[in-house]
Amino acid sequence: MIERLCIIGVGLIGGSLALALRRAGYVKHVVGTSRNEANLRKAVELGVIDDYTLEPARAVAHADVVVLAVPLGAVRTVCESIKDAMPRGAILSDAGSAKGCVVNDVHAAFGSSLADFVPAHPIAGIEKNGVEAAFAELFDKRLTILTPLDSTSPTATDRITAMWEAAGSRVTVMEVAHHDQVLAATSHLPHVLAYGLVDSLARMEDVDEIFQYAAGGFRDFTRIASSDPVMWRDVCLANRAAVSQMIERYQTDLETLARAIAAADGDTLLNIFQHAKQTRDQFCG
Amino acid sequence: MIERLCIIGVGLIGGSLALALRRAGYVKHVVGTSRNEANLRKAVELGVIDDYTLEPARAVAHADVVVLAVPLGAVRTVCESIKDAMPRGAILSDAGSAKGCVVNDVHAAFGSSLADFVPAHPIAGIEKNGVEAAFAELFDKRLTILTPLDSTSPTATDRITAMWEAAGSRVTVMEVAHHDQVLAATSHLPHVLAYGLVDSLARMEDVDEIFQYAAGGFRDFTRIASSDPVMWRDVCLANRAAVSQMIERYQTDLETLARAIAAADGDTLLNIFQHAKQTRDQFCG
Repeated sequence: MIERLCIIGVGLIGGSLALALRRAGYVKHVVGTSRNEANLRKAVELGVIDDYTLEPARAVAHADVVVLAVPLGAVRTVCESIKDAMPRGAILSDAGSAKGCVVNDVHAAFGSSLADFVPAHPIAGIEKNGVEAAFAELFDKRLTILTPLDSTSPTATDRITAMWEAAGSRVTVMEVAHHDQVLAATSHLPHVLAYGLVDSLARMEDVDEIFQYAAGGFRDFTRIASSDPVMWRDVCLANRAAVSQMIERYQTDLETLARAIAAADGDTLLNIFQHAKQTRDQFCG
Repeated sequence: MIERLCIIGVGLIGGSLALALRRAGYVKHVVGTSRNEANLRKAVELGVIDDYTLEPARAVAHADVVVLAVPLGAVRTVCESIKDAMPRGAILSDAGSAKGCVVNDVHAAFGSSLADFVPAHPIAGIEKNGVEAAFAELFDKRLTILTPLDSTSPTATDRITAMWEAAGSRVTVMEVAHHDQVLAATSHLPHVLAYGLVDSLARMEDVDEIFQYAAGGFRDFTRIASSDPVMWRDVCLANRAAVSQMIERYQTDLETLARAIAAADGDTLLNIFQHAKQTRDQFCG
């Protein structure tokens, strides 16, 4: 049970977490903060948060749990603005899609004064963003990965585990670096590829016609290209070592496909396509 | 109204066309043929076709419309097996995802004896295949592109237009080469990219873990990688000039993204991501 939850950045993820915890009766009071007052007012109207302040340092006062749900690029600045105000015993957590950069930024801002910090990543999202898109069911049956540090107390990890479970999520634990590699493969790379495809087609001459003839497969394939550009710019920058490695790997494999097509090498194509279908059917079927 | 429709290749597309035309009361008798008798028997059981024969030449006898719904790689062989049996006045059509190759193969097989041929491409599909996956609503409100040739009679084009409209589809007309370029961009390239991604990840060491942490975005992004590998091998080979051109274009654009990420060039990333989101929201929103 959380007495006072502070959500920094009340968008899709922060807002949905608040709604999910309210649904579970797991939180008494939710205070929100962000740089956008209109957004915070909307969050109060929608019943996502109880009240708000534009000053992060005031928002964290008296909180027992503080969750950073801002774009990765804003983590360090936000942490610098709250570091002197974090209540003794409060747990700091986040919801960022990459973890190494968050750990670095939090450490850089807090230095030796860091309270219990539990890096967390709920693997859930839709292509809409903003608090209007938030809903209590977003995390139901989804997975949240925690990457606790050597300095994180088991009690803090347990409390954040309980929070995400109360929000409907399953919880698993992983090393920071391993998280960033796995997510680069399954999430960050696909986003780059999808944004890249839509941008590539959008710069063609007959763009109107091209999109007019796009079918359901294209719509599904490019859905993630409707995600928040700022968030995904930050993810690519924050996890750029792992993302770069995955892109390079993909480029090599795409070149193999390109050569097979140019050479009319049907056997190679069929092998790759069959292996892909078999794997996807096995895991996503 | 079609008296006797012959479907060559009774899978998802051929089977769904038969079901859609039956639903509309637009066809009296449907005869199916393919190389797989078990599949044809299943098609009769499911009420997709009225009867079948394993001999294409017998299947087309007395048909007023013959639709080729086989993988592109089988078009030429099938046409050679029916060319001497096509009834006078019967219309030949197809449902292939690339049109230039079908036109070439049909011409090569039939030579000067070609009856009215209306190349057609219903832009509809799901990742399942086979007659068990066929359903009458597959083409509802979807688009079918016809690419009639100089030698195609307007009457034949009108009849195939009416057939696809009866099946629930909207119909538009396009040049063969233009069709193949547009579809390379919106359909063939995305399939190559999706197959390539799943295969690439499937060859990583920690494949089980990687797919375990894949979220909804990944599932949508890779859905088309569960499509029929033989069909898509054939599409890539059949339309390889246009597909190769699109892959090359994409590789250049992906390299721009890769460089921006490696250089931590957030402005370039944000521009590309915003342009992509804006375009997709506009056309698919």
